[in-house]
Amino acid sequence: MQTGTFFAVSVGCGSADMLTIQALEVLKACSVICFPETSDGHHIAFDAVSAALDVSAKELLFCPMPMTHDSEKLSRAYSAACEQCAARLRAGTDVAFVALGDVSLYATAAHVASHLAPLGFPVRYIAGVTSITAAACACALELAGKESPVTIIPADAYIKNGKLVQALRAEGTKVFMKAGKSLPKLLSAISAAGLLDCSYLVQNVSLDTERRYCGNELLQLPAAALECYLSIVIVLEKRAV
Amino acid sequence: MQTGTFFAVSVGCGSADMLTIQALEVLKACSVICFPETSDGHHIAFDAVSAALDVSAKELLFCPMPMTHDSEKLSRAYSAACEQCAARLRAGTDVAFVALGDVSLYATAAHVASHLAPLGFPVRYIAGVTSITAAACACALELAGKESPVTIIPADAYIKNGKLVQALRAEGTKVFMKAGKSLPKLLSAISAAGLLDCSYLVQNVSLDTERRYCGNELLQLPAAALECYLSIVIVLEKRAV
Repeated sequence: MQTGTFFAVSVGCGSADMLTIQALEVLKACSVICFPETSDGHHIAFDAVSAALDVSAKELLFCPMPMTHDSEKLSRAYSAACEQCAARLRAGTDVAFVALGDVSLYATAAHVASHLAPLGFPVRYIAGVTSITAAACACALELAGKESPVTIIPADAYIKNGKLVQALRAEGTKVFMKAGKSLPKLLSAISAAGLLDCSYLVQNVSLDTERRYCGNELLQLPAAALECYLSIVIVLEKRAV
Repeated sequence: MQTGTFFAVSVGCGSADMLTIQALEVLKACSVICFPETSDGHHIAFDAVSAALDVSAKELLFCPMPMTHDSEKLSRAYSAACEQCAARLRAGTDVAFVALGDVSLYATAAHVASHLAPLGFPVRYIAGVTSITAAACACALELAGKESPVTIIPADAYIKNGKLVQALRAEGTKVFMKAGKSLPKLLSAISAAGLLDCSYLVQNVSLDTERRYCGNELLQLPAAALECYLSIVIVLEKRAV
């Protein structure tokens, strides 16, 4: 029997209308849809998908993903997700594994795909809108100058390994993802570097709960904002106007 | 009379099914649709839009944009585009200005928006799929490591200002856009840096003419590939497997 195809499907940032037509078609065609289930934010992808299409006749799999750096725990979680998917693929069923943003950036779906491909299962990535450009669009910002780079930085890792200050001094626009609990430290560092006036924070972009802050507002955030999982911080290059 | 809204609408990389549901709805709702008309590639956005929706009852504006670094010529082209849009907006008509990829990255639509906003016209950016993640998805690549950056680099500018070699030595994944006629120089530099085995070239991503090359293939490209306007080069970070 021919095996099914594993589709790693980007669904955008949360609003159902951010799905591409292609993602919608793939999700409609797959009878199994998997969602990574993290302690925060997992319901957002489910809400987007279930608002965009009728999932009542689908098999829905929720794959628990611990928010941890413990590689053994993570490895066990990935193995369990892979086994669930592989069982359906072996039976000839196509499987869609959903990713918020785009599959190529920090997505569980891509990790699962990288385990399934070597087993011989066909794998396809469906591209989507990342929170990076969605956040820029929400603030009507141009991220890139004609001659300078845009750097996407995992904030939490950079704070832990002491690279943040140097990164803030580098040329071009910086976009910080994955700040997590380190968001206050990131904002303090931006302030200390004198970059507040070209900095923007966008949370829950595209959702009803979307919030945007810029400049000095970044030092006076409400408590809830400091704990928001889906935060993008943009530090624009200072450009001549 | 209330003025119209200027929508800078990202339409993805060329395939009509890469439009988001939101972009499709905005384009359907606007009676004027503008396309930047460059010497290369301008028909791609038009083909995507006209395949995704019926444009027969729309006013279509094609705004010539010279492919030049001559700032006076560019300034005149932007002014002309702005005037065409402003005339419709003043009459209360919503205008959609189309951008390939995402509006926040190197888009004429964003430049036009930045001229119209100070005149008091309401401006909205509609996010879309960039060729960066679309290229990564076409090759089923994960762009980002957990602790390292992803840097988006305007290749042509970096070759002209001598920064390319240093950029290739830096940490993390590099994504080169806008190589233009410098593509052979970029690929030679990647080869000289010993990075061919983690490098990928994706051209015309999402279109029927999409081509993907990796590793040593990058040194033996067909002549047509060396002149392709829509090229993305990804140099992946070397990661432990």
